[in-house]
Amino acid sequence: MAQREFNVDKNASFSEWYNTVIYAADLVDVRYNVQGFVVHKPWSTRVLRKLYSLFEAELEKDGHEPVSFPVVIPKENIDKEAGHLEGFAPELFWVTKGGNNELARPLALRPTSETAFYQMYSLWVQGIGDLPLKYYQSCSVYRYEHETLPFLRGREFMFIETHTAFAERAEAAAQVAKDMVIARRVLEGGLGLALMQFVRPHWDTFPGAENTYANDVVMPDGKVNQIASTHMLGQHFSKPFDVSFEDASGEKKYTFNTCFGPGIWRVMAALIAVHGDNKGLIFTPVVAPVQVVIVPIFKAETRDAVLAYAVKARLALEKKGYRVALDDSDKSPGFKYNEWELKGVPMRLEIGGREAEAGNVTLVRRDTHEKTVVPLAVLPRAVARAGKALAKELAKRSKAELKARITKCKSIDAIGKALDGKGGFCRVNICSTGSEGTACGKLIQERTAGKVRGMLYGADEKASGKCVACGKPANEVVYVARQY
Amino acid sequence: MAQREFNVDKNASFSEWYNTVIYAADLVDVRYNVQGFVVHKPWSTRVLRKLYSLFEAELEKDGHEPVSFPVVIPKENIDKEAGHLEGFAPELFWVTKGGNNELARPLALRPTSETAFYQMYSLWVQGIGDLPLKYYQSCSVYRYEHETLPFLRGREFMFIETHTAFAERAEAAAQVAKDMVIARRVLEGGLGLALMQFVRPHWDTFPGAENTYANDVVMPDGKVNQIASTHMLGQHFSKPFDVSFEDASGEKKYTFNTCFGPGIWRVMAALIAVHGDNKGLIFTPVVAPVQVVIVPIFKAETRDAVLAYAVKARLALEKKGYRVALDDSDKSPGFKYNEWELKGVPMRLEIGGREAEAGNVTLVRRDTHEKTVVPLAVLPRAVARAGKALAKELAKRSKAELKARITKCKSIDAIGKALDGKGGFCRVNICSTGSEGTACGKLIQERTAGKVRGMLYGADEKASGKCVACGKPANEVVYVARQY
Repeated sequence: MAQREFNVDKNASFSEWYNTVIYAADLVDVRYNVQGFVVHKPWSTRVLRKLYSLFEAELEKDGHEPVSFPVVIPKENIDKEAGHLEGFAPELFWVTKGGNNELARPLALRPTSETAFYQMYSLWVQGIGDLPLKYYQSCSVYRYEHETLPFLRGREFMFIETHTAFAERAEAAAQVAKDMVIARRVLEGGLGLALMQFVRPHWDTFPGAENTYANDVVMPDGKVNQIASTHMLGQHFSKPFDVSFEDASGEKKYTFNTCFGPGIWRVMAALIAVHGDNKGLIFTPVVAPVQVVIVPIFKAETRDAVLAYAVKARLALEKKGYRVALDDSDKSPGFKYNEWELKGVPMRLEIGGREAEAGNVTLVRRDTHEKTVVPLAVLPRAVARAGKALAKELAKRSKAELKARITKCKSIDAIGKALDGKGGFCRVNICSTGSEGTACGKLIQERTAGKVRGMLYGADEKASGKCVACGKPANEVVYVARQY
Repeated sequence: MAQREFNVDKNASFSEWYNTVIYAADLVDVRYNVQGFVVHKPWSTRVLRKLYSLFEAELEKDGHEPVSFPVVIPKENIDKEAGHLEGFAPELFWVTKGGNNELARPLALRPTSETAFYQMYSLWVQGIGDLPLKYYQSCSVYRYEHETLPFLRGREFMFIETHTAFAERAEAAAQVAKDMVIARRVLEGGLGLALMQFVRPHWDTFPGAENTYANDVVMPDGKVNQIASTHMLGQHFSKPFDVSFEDASGEKKYTFNTCFGPGIWRVMAALIAVHGDNKGLIFTPVVAPVQVVIVPIFKAETRDAVLAYAVKARLALEKKGYRVALDDSDKSPGFKYNEWELKGVPMRLEIGGREAEAGNVTLVRRDTHEKTVVPLAVLPRAVARAGKALAKELAKRSKAELKARITKCKSIDAIGKALDGKGGFCRVNICSTGSEGTACGKLIQERTAGKVRGMLYGADEKASGKCVACGKPANEVVYVARQY
């Protein structure tokens, strides 16, 4: 069912490439008749599940436990935190009817679940012995967006949300730091997506948060994709929702909360966009639904021997836990090569009569197209090595690409020029990322269509000279980029 | 946070037992402020995930692939199949607003997704080469129910739905048979839940189906819980949605469709209710979030040695892939025993100073409370054996319970009496399960509050005598039960 034709130059027109490849590789079907809601085909569903489990494993190692909360949130909950309400009100889908009855209270489809979790946390936190709470849910969320693009912005998209409660601010701050480590470990370490980690400026925090910490990936068109963010909520939610306990001296204390939102959909967008090439997708072995595809090459007289040998190769790999497909369909080998390359399978085995006789296979890497002849006896080891090398190569490319997309700019004009050109990030000096800098942030955005992404997280970059916007002495180094 | 008190007699008051245990064992919190929507705590979330994966593994072995469809279905889709619309209209939740805008078309939260899948299938089926389609999605569904009870009937509940399309009716029929095998394999084989498999009577088919095949489990109060059902949809959906292809002779043919709905939530209800006892839940090892809990027993002077030894036992089991908890909290051993028994952990290790010295552990089974002293060296094997024995014992109990709940009845009065008494299934002779029998089905229901569950699937029971309802010659043997 996949549209087999794929002949778009990623560099010439990234947007056409992206829209074509997600359809050609059979990831989604956008023809479902509700705008902004897409159908995920098996190939993407399998990758998305893997992405979920990569994050879930890291979260569980860090002591988070899974929960499953309702998809609907009553309006009265959302009303409780003013900034949150204001931020989300225009984006909410409302369930107003059940059967033929108007519901007494409208219910929002969750855009994120702070206002559901913290209501329950107020019941669950009785004493300090109940803390910390570290829960996560893997779910889809709903936002009434106007412009949508699969995996980047949708009215329904896949998401993980963690919600924590701590007795002390310092513990919450430590959780933020852990979240940033988890994001880097999964995204950069596991998936080879080079990251920029930021403390967002004050004027661009999550609705209801004190501070937002975020992970940005640069896409091939130079725009950035915010993939995961962590919010220091302070006591913004614990106070209105009364998530509190008595301390040793009998004083009522409110918890400190954080939440972390790995955007599973957006990770997928980054995987597609950053690693893909003019032949299609490239998945690293850790998420590829099929890690190795075997393409047998035979004439009528060698058919049985080649197929039997191919099955042997498949079993040898499956025994070691690899996900393998043996493509014994009637299509030509060349057709099969193209199809599986389009779908991003990281390794291919070509097996013909010669290989079968000699006890070899030809192993081809998706990223470099490098071919190696490998004895069947050592195939699993060779596949492990090739898979690792591929993952490393993709990570290296992504890192180089990111590095090449950072430009130092001393003026707003220079920012505009850089963003019009190669895009990516402009490193600039600014007066402040606090509320005093809001006007400067606005000015930069108006003049360049770029947003201040924030200060580099975990680095302590020294500002010099003047703020690019107001000309006053600069106190902070920030990065400006156009975003999805 | 669990409510530790648990002192309800399951036999004396099943309903009180059920409502208490799901809260005491920390499965759900029903205090979320939207009726019929519950919060799933980690313990139930983990079991539900395992239930999903048991079914998913079987479905994938049978060639189904995972997809993920939107949560909303436009009204126009639901309108297309008259019976389906009529069946679901009173149960639909409607999304009518986005932000401050009325949506142009109301969107239903999926009550089940035939009308979403078949719309897409009409795009995906072009030729016979595209068939069969066998997809499933793991998701929650939404129904505007009035009486709700966690895991049994909710406004949001967890579900798997498969949707298939075949060229030939015989293939669809074969899929129905496969689904029934999968249900039996997972529910009875894997989880030890004794099943009755039925062909539902004509007047009780799924809206839009030709025939419904279902799996019923008897609950401790004698009412039955329909856990999974398969529907032969025939061409009821393929015609209005135009899921069609040209056959070899150029004739337009409509596909034959089936769908299978394992009710993950309802499986959970059955696990809780059927296997639980007056001490709480009992999970079989295959789904238990913790399979073995280790309770160390020490005085101040033996503390370090006992804990070190307990860690050794834990590692020995974890190395073999077991999910183990070592409860080294400050509570008393007795308190811990109660707590972990309440939560249904199938095996417990008691480790004291004597065991540590002798290199033994005491292994206690949750179902029989049988204690065995086991040398540490053979612990994983002993745990494997005990786990199997426990699963077997639970299955045996469930089978015996089911058998004891089947009563042969020759009159409607006898049905009423049996259902008022031990409940379960009344085996009766009836004129017909076709539309001619509708009035008899209705009469039985009016007089006994029992429903005709259908003919035993895969058995060929011979009717004798007269229809219990109309007195005409009986042609079919059916089973009557009260249901959840």
